[in-house]
Amino acid sequence: MDIDAYSDYFVCSGCGHETPSDVFCTFCSRCHEPFTLESRSPARVFHWNKKGLFKRFGEFLPLDMMEPSADLGTGGTPLVPLTAVADKYGLPPLYAKMESAEPTGSFKDRGTAVAVQKALDLGIPAIGTVSTGNMAASTAAYGARAGLKTVVLVKEDTSEDKIKAAGIFGASMVRVRGDYGALFRKSLELGRKHGIWFMNSVDPFRIEGYKTLSFEIYDDLSEKPPEYVCVPVSAGGHLTGLIKGFEVLKRTGLTEAFPRMIGVQAAGCSPIVQAFRGGESHITRFNHPKTIAHAISNPDPPAGRLILKKMREHGGEMTAVTDAQILQAQRDLASLEGIFCQPASATTLAGWIRFTQSHPVDRSSQCVLVITGSGLKTVDLVDSNALFIKDSDLNELDSLFMDI
Amino acid sequence: MDIDAYSDYFVCSGCGHETPSDVFCTFCSRCHEPFTLESRSPARVFHWNKKGLFKRFGEFLPLDMMEPSADLGTGGTPLVPLTAVADKYGLPPLYAKMESAEPTGSFKDRGTAVAVQKALDLGIPAIGTVSTGNMAASTAAYGARAGLKTVVLVKEDTSEDKIKAAGIFGASMVRVRGDYGALFRKSLELGRKHGIWFMNSVDPFRIEGYKTLSFEIYDDLSEKPPEYVCVPVSAGGHLTGLIKGFEVLKRTGLTEAFPRMIGVQAAGCSPIVQAFRGGESHITRFNHPKTIAHAISNPDPPAGRLILKKMREHGGEMTAVTDAQILQAQRDLASLEGIFCQPASATTLAGWIRFTQSHPVDRSSQCVLVITGSGLKTVDLVDSNALFIKDSDLNELDSLFMDI
Repeated sequence: MDIDAYSDYFVCSGCGHETPSDVFCTFCSRCHEPFTLESRSPARVFHWNKKGLFKRFGEFLPLDMMEPSADLGTGGTPLVPLTAVADKYGLPPLYAKMESAEPTGSFKDRGTAVAVQKALDLGIPAIGTVSTGNMAASTAAYGARAGLKTVVLVKEDTSEDKIKAAGIFGASMVRVRGDYGALFRKSLELGRKHGIWFMNSVDPFRIEGYKTLSFEIYDDLSEKPPEYVCVPVSAGGHLTGLIKGFEVLKRTGLTEAFPRMIGVQAAGCSPIVQAFRGGESHITRFNHPKTIAHAISNPDPPAGRLILKKMREHGGEMTAVTDAQILQAQRDLASLEGIFCQPASATTLAGWIRFTQSHPVDRSSQCVLVITGSGLKTVDLVDSNALFIKDSDLNELDSLFMDI
Repeated sequence: MDIDAYSDYFVCSGCGHETPSDVFCTFCSRCHEPFTLESRSPARVFHWNKKGLFKRFGEFLPLDMMEPSADLGTGGTPLVPLTAVADKYGLPPLYAKMESAEPTGSFKDRGTAVAVQKALDLGIPAIGTVSTGNMAASTAAYGARAGLKTVVLVKEDTSEDKIKAAGIFGASMVRVRGDYGALFRKSLELGRKHGIWFMNSVDPFRIEGYKTLSFEIYDDLSEKPPEYVCVPVSAGGHLTGLIKGFEVLKRTGLTEAFPRMIGVQAAGCSPIVQAFRGGESHITRFNHPKTIAHAISNPDPPAGRLILKKMREHGGEMTAVTDAQILQAQRDLASLEGIFCQPASATTLAGWIRFTQSHPVDRSSQCVLVITGSGLKTVDLVDSNALFIKDSDLNELDSLFMDI
């Protein structure tokens, strides 16, 4: 389907340099900060009553052409109330936005869906990504569906299961020895050379897809933003997109309100929290990261400075939580709410509990936790010793039931 | 929220015996066939424009009271076109209904959601199930959310990962030594004794939840049923529910059409296919079942006779596919469509290809494959040798990209 030209261009989030958009340039050549995407096009409208990400929000996406049939059913994830958890911890109205229900089981799908449409739009035949998990599966799946050649670069110690869960889509999987940060930069350089669009974590087009999560949260809550949104922070792309989404809602006049964003990192890898708390404007690489929340263990986040700037501009807050707090939150979400999420996603509950302990929060304030990924991808991290497991034979069952 | 009384009662699918509904009686005491649920209440209406299973379809569910906040966001799964697969095999318009996007990653959630609401409705404090995988996680998750004590009985050789993926919800997990069929029957007997509702695979209330899948398919296809629906068949509960759903659509006058249902089993465990093809009215236990599609490997399906009757009544067809065909279909769905499903779900594509090879199918006929469960639950079954995996260091990447 055709829409009016979006007339997008890039603005450097560091030095403000403006340039035509180019999918092969994620970072500004002058200051090495990531580009963000802006549009010169006139005001656009939402189509709330339609179904599917592209039909509902297509006018706010940087696409001149869209092929909804190339989509996998992105977006439209449930928002569910967390009554039992709120009761346990004495919290005001709490909700979970279930990005774990996306087609490949993580929030990455919104970004991949938009970037892959852009690749089709521009006629780019090959895409790639650098990932340790969620992004690998997402990019490989959408790339396969769109008929694009797809390359996924992973660290040499990536588990067999994670390689299988992306490789099944027919992507070229490459295990690469060496530093992950260097691999991230190298992929962009080689991608440019070979005509492979590496849509990595802070790609400006990927970030445009994340905006749609904010649109849906606004809609799910009967056309108003919540007072708070808690989201895990790794490279910074997802949070950047969420903030952009709420900025759009405000700019279009749909609401005056802007939620207070709470970015959460694992204490064992919290470079943005440290810089935010220390009043710094740049990120210092986090040495010896160690946390069970692997999906957000990024010691040198490429959108870190952008996050610091945006969070300060909007009165956001950054907080860190320990692995013990993360695992407790994961168990609470599962055993009280029936939600099995990744440790990285559980940081949102742990972070919100921590935040409310040190900040006054109005009893009527609504808070949305973004459940970024399915626990089915990290089953190996569940500790069996914390579960109730018994052995029995058929005859013993009767007496066993008396104790249950 | 309150609705008019549904006035449900049980009818035995074997001898026709009618009796008040009783969640502790899945099977008729006279002939041992499963009960199905009927309603004496007047005509009811759909609320297509609402969101959520209970608000849209609540009037067609056997509930006098509903608590939508106890739901996990069931239903509303995407229906996506399978253009590339249809092209490869020269098939008419083909679609996938993505039950893999349900809250716990399988179709079981629709049944569990309804049964758990019924437990709340009746004030039953404890529920249970017998399962080797999908049902365990689904029942444990919804039970946890509803605050019900939940017991999950699994076979002694159930993998650690499957136990973790259900145990994380806080359910009492019991590994039971002995025959699985005997365990199924024992669970119902002991459940009755101890007041634990074992909502197993062919529970009449669970089946009521599966009806909603048919309602959604009708709605997804712009208010008409497809000409064909392919679905994996194990115990028979799911297919029974789908047929009931399409019966309701016809009875309410929304459509005159009834899709031709294609039930698919793995050749290595195909008791219903054998009985159907052989013109039998009863099922002979399938000896030495052996298939990679574990989720549908049921040698003695409790709703087998019911399926034989219903499929003959509606002109349905049963077909069996080999493990090689299943694995090829799984790879096709992943590498051509970006859909990673369980082997059991891939039987639908394999079965549909097989069916079209031996039956004339109109070129304009639409077919929906029910993708019953996420491949993330069976990653261990993916053969790495069939994937493209290379090793490299940073310096070799450049030359490697030339070959990709």
